[in-house]
Amino acid sequence: MIDQHIASAFDRDLEEIQAHVMKMGGLVEDSIREGARSLKMRDEELAEKVRKADKQIDALDTKIQEECARLLALRQPIASDLRTVLTVMRVAANLERVGDYAKNMAKRTTVLVHMQPIDGASGAIKRMAKEVRLMLSDVLDAYIRRDVDLAQDVRHRDIEVDQMYNALFREFLTFMMEDPRNISSCMHLHFIAKNIERMGDHVTSIADQVIYLVTGEMPEEARPKGNSVNYNLEAQMGLERET
Amino acid sequence: MIDQHIASAFDRDLEEIQAHVMKMGGLVEDSIREGARSLKMRDEELAEKVRKADKQIDALDTKIQEECARLLALRQPIASDLRTVLTVMRVAANLERVGDYAKNMAKRTTVLVHMQPIDGASGAIKRMAKEVRLMLSDVLDAYIRRDVDLAQDVRHRDIEVDQMYNALFREFLTFMMEDPRNISSCMHLHFIAKNIERMGDHVTSIADQVIYLVTGEMPEEARPKGNSVNYNLEAQMGLERET
Repeated sequence: MIDQHIASAFDRDLEEIQAHVMKMGGLVEDSIREGARSLKMRDEELAEKVRKADKQIDALDTKIQEECARLLALRQPIASDLRTVLTVMRVAANLERVGDYAKNMAKRTTVLVHMQPIDGASGAIKRMAKEVRLMLSDVLDAYIRRDVDLAQDVRHRDIEVDQMYNALFREFLTFMMEDPRNISSCMHLHFIAKNIERMGDHVTSIADQVIYLVTGEMPEEARPKGNSVNYNLEAQMGLERET
Repeated sequence: MIDQHIASAFDRDLEEIQAHVMKMGGLVEDSIREGARSLKMRDEELAEKVRKADKQIDALDTKIQEECARLLALRQPIASDLRTVLTVMRVAANLERVGDYAKNMAKRTTVLVHMQPIDGASGAIKRMAKEVRLMLSDVLDAYIRRDVDLAQDVRHRDIEVDQMYNALFREFLTFMMEDPRNISSCMHLHFIAKNIERMGDHVTSIADQVIYLVTGEMPEEARPKGNSVNYNLEAQMGLERET
């Protein structure tokens, strides 16, 4: 068995790293909320703030990866301790990606504020972003509490996010076909919607990690990334244009 | 110092894992090539093959991640050996993402074959995909040979990929504005171009890992992901529509 002293040192180190992960998660939640709000309010200053905040998120990711590497080298954990450290590294990597997508939303917002608004689009995007943000908040709770049921719940909610994306895709296509002057802005909005849909995939991936951490196995019906996005719908829309 | 016997066992295990990484890299290269070819040739069967091949790529990633975790637990490497294992895990994760984007290109191809072709687009995308595929091939060479110069070269070439993307973005926008019947197909083509641009970012990230592995430091002027994509161009295109 592992020496009690060593085990405690490991736990202490791990706790410190996990605090950084939670801080990172909070910053990413803020970025999603403020990114979507900057789009809705056409607030260029807020968008700029979100873009800058991503540097802090990236720095935290780097810090966490380095601390995990040091922990592996110093404490040489095995079994479930090792699994925990590897999970922390993956969770941080996923958070970093979500942060990137939020930054991207802010970047596109600074472009969109100079364009004609598209009716209802920024509101619909804000609702989609909110759903993903709540999923992120819950999955971080699930991680801290090692709560498999909550993690499963988050996974199921990602299906709704995909449905929201499909509805938006259809809407943007209609707007573009109605008036070519909408094309530029709809392309940016479509990318934002797609990026939020991808945030959902990364949150789902964190949920998978939580389940792996507790049960030792990845969820059986692990949804392939983005698989529930309706390519058939996209196809139909295209085929409709052909007929 | 580490016992010679232990060191050799580590090296042997690592070599086996690295062989899997190289195999994975080869499969991803194939997927990029065949994904782009299926689009160019409007070959639905080939696209289907690429989609199926991604399962194999994902399985290899899972295998590599598990083997690395086992290696960490069993051999408890420190210093540069630990760094190598962590790098292998990140390289495999990056390859998995590139594979996802190739699969996505194939998925959209199965939709695009039922639409009116866009003049010159699939050829331009094929050239862009080829550049990324060659970068990937070189970065895997750089990884095996621990060649920092070659890794640096790959990083610089990603700028060209970003420029190709910017040119395509401009082209698709023009096509869509000229004729609304092009909108559906151009949106798919635009996503494919964007995904190839992202493949380039992941290949660049592997190049960064190679440099980190050899020098112990991440490249100083590490380009933030996708930063050289010309949002100003996108903005101008939008603003032009306003005036």
